Amino acid sequence: MPRFRNTISLTADAALDALSAAVERAKAIQVPQCIFIVDTSGETIASIRMDGAKYLSMHTARAKARTAASINGATGAMTAEFGLAAGIASQGGVTHLPGGLPIRFDGVIAGAIGVGSGTGEQDFDVARAALKALGADEV
Amino acid sequence: MPRFRNTISLTADAALDALSAAVERAKAIQVPQCIFIVDTSGETIASIRMDGAKYLSMHTARAKARTAASINGATGAMTAEFGLAAGIASQGGVTHLPGGLPIRFDGVIAGAIGVGSGTGEQDFDVARAALKALGADEV
Amino acid sequence: MPRFRNTISLTADAALDALSAAVERAKAIQVPQCIFIVDTSGETIASIRMDGAKYLSMHTARAKARTAASINGATGAMTAEFGLAAGIASQGGVTHLPGGLPIRFDGVIAGAIGVGSGTGEQDFDVARAALKALGADEV
Amino acid sequence: MPRFRNTISLTADAALDALSAAVERAKAIQVPQCIFIVDTSGETIASIRMDGAKYLSMHTARAKARTAASINGATGAMTAEFGLAAGIASQGGVTHLPGGLPIRFDGVIAGAIGVGSGTGEQDFDVARAALKALGADEV
Repeated sequence: MPRFRNTISLTADAALDALSAAVERAKAIQVPQCIFIVDTSGETIASIRMDGAKYLSMHTARAKARTAASINGATGAMTAEFGLAAGIASQGGVTHLPGGLPIRFDGVIAGAIGVGSGTGEQDFDVARAALKALGADEV
Repeated sequence: MPRFRNTISLTADAALDALSAAVERAKAIQVPQCIFIVDTSGETIASIRMDGAKYLSMHTARAKARTAASINGATGAMTAEFGLAAGIASQGGVTHLPGGLPIRFDGVIAGAIGVGSGTGEQDFDVARAALKALGADEV
Repeated sequence: MPRFRNTISLTADAALDALSAAVERAKAIQVPQCIFIVDTSGETIASIRMDGAKYLSMHTARAKARTAASINGATGAMTAEFGLAAGIASQGGVTHLPGGLPIRFDGVIAGAIGVGSGTGEQDFDVARAALKALGADEV
Repeated sequence: MPRFRNTISLTADAALDALSAAVERAKAIQVPQCIFIVDTSGETIASIRMDGAKYLSMHTARAKARTAASINGATGAMTAEFGLAAGIASQGGVTHLPGGLPIRFDGVIAGAIGVGSGTGEQDFDVARAALKALGADEV
């Protein structure tokens, strides 16, 4: 019986490219953002806080990225009641705030991105720009 | 391309003057208060807990000040659902409680103040007395 | 340019087998142990606290496993001064205590194991029994 | 009496350029690194964890950057005894580990950089490459 399974992980170079693409999109829509890229277990690969972004949104952006990696799906779909309870139980790990997306290639998760400081729609918009630049699966 | 941007930061002397004015106002309305003055990144410059104030309100006053600095605006305007979710994700950093105000001069942020232990109205009242004493922009 | 790199991750079934082998060895040497199996980013896959083991050793066992995964090597080799400083800076993440080993197959890391509650020698002894049961590389 | 003092802050674009230069240097010396750029109050502007770097070094790199910003000087000069005590008292904020440098322009601090995962010398080497790319003061 195999003792391990094959996995993939976003490279640091790709994470930097993702940040750049996200920053470019955030500038285009004139919404300074905080952006986190994490691996499949939620450890940070890269992050950026744009000039004028809310600095405390670094925390929400990170939680969104970690939640998207954990659930292997977009954040924002769980109910507020569940999200708050899970957020408390995980000491800020889980969030139901929108703006987190898994980064997948051919259906296999390689990491996740979380964006915060704008509205939920703006956050997703910027996150999707990063996915597109990476050639990752649409979510 | 410039590698840095010009910013301003409230002086420690000004922070003490702000505390004095806030304390004076709190005495006038007979509501002992907890007051935090933070810089634009949320680090504490000065704080005071008045006799008779709730000591745990030091935490809410600090969170209000840090949130006001982060959003560059008054606290109390975000929805409870968002405030709770962002508060959990930021491990107590963000709060939607009223009583936090940015300290701005000619529209440029130099820090923020947070007041807690009274009602939201009393907290704002005391925070505004500090802004007035500093000659800071009304918020 | 490839956007991701190929990685491997220990399966949960393998982690349970590792725990069983470690427990069997701990019983044989009559030293109840705390054992953690983590993935390559330090997230827990499985854990066990044997009857009679020091319950706070769950924390050291976890730190040993996380450190072994982080450095991709056995714990216990860094100086105490560095280990303490890194442990403080990582809020208990890094430890220089012996008893942590990476779990590798053909040189590729798939996770790590950390054992605590015995002496350093006993901890390593139990960790190695787990590696052997998995058919993992000797460390 | 002026109520605020003039300060400067590294831009996010400059922080990304600093990361890129640091990564390039780390690749040249073949030492994968964790790199943090923080503002003058220690809040993160940008970070990167290179492929193969120790993920727990993200914590030490951050502490180095925050300490360098706090002391407005290079880390690594305080005694181990003081560094450990201050690190404990600041819950991981202060560190005496080498690898943190202030980012200054004409003597004025604009932020700081912290590098971890290599030796102290390698960490400083990579940090200095970032300063040079920014045209910041040598430290």
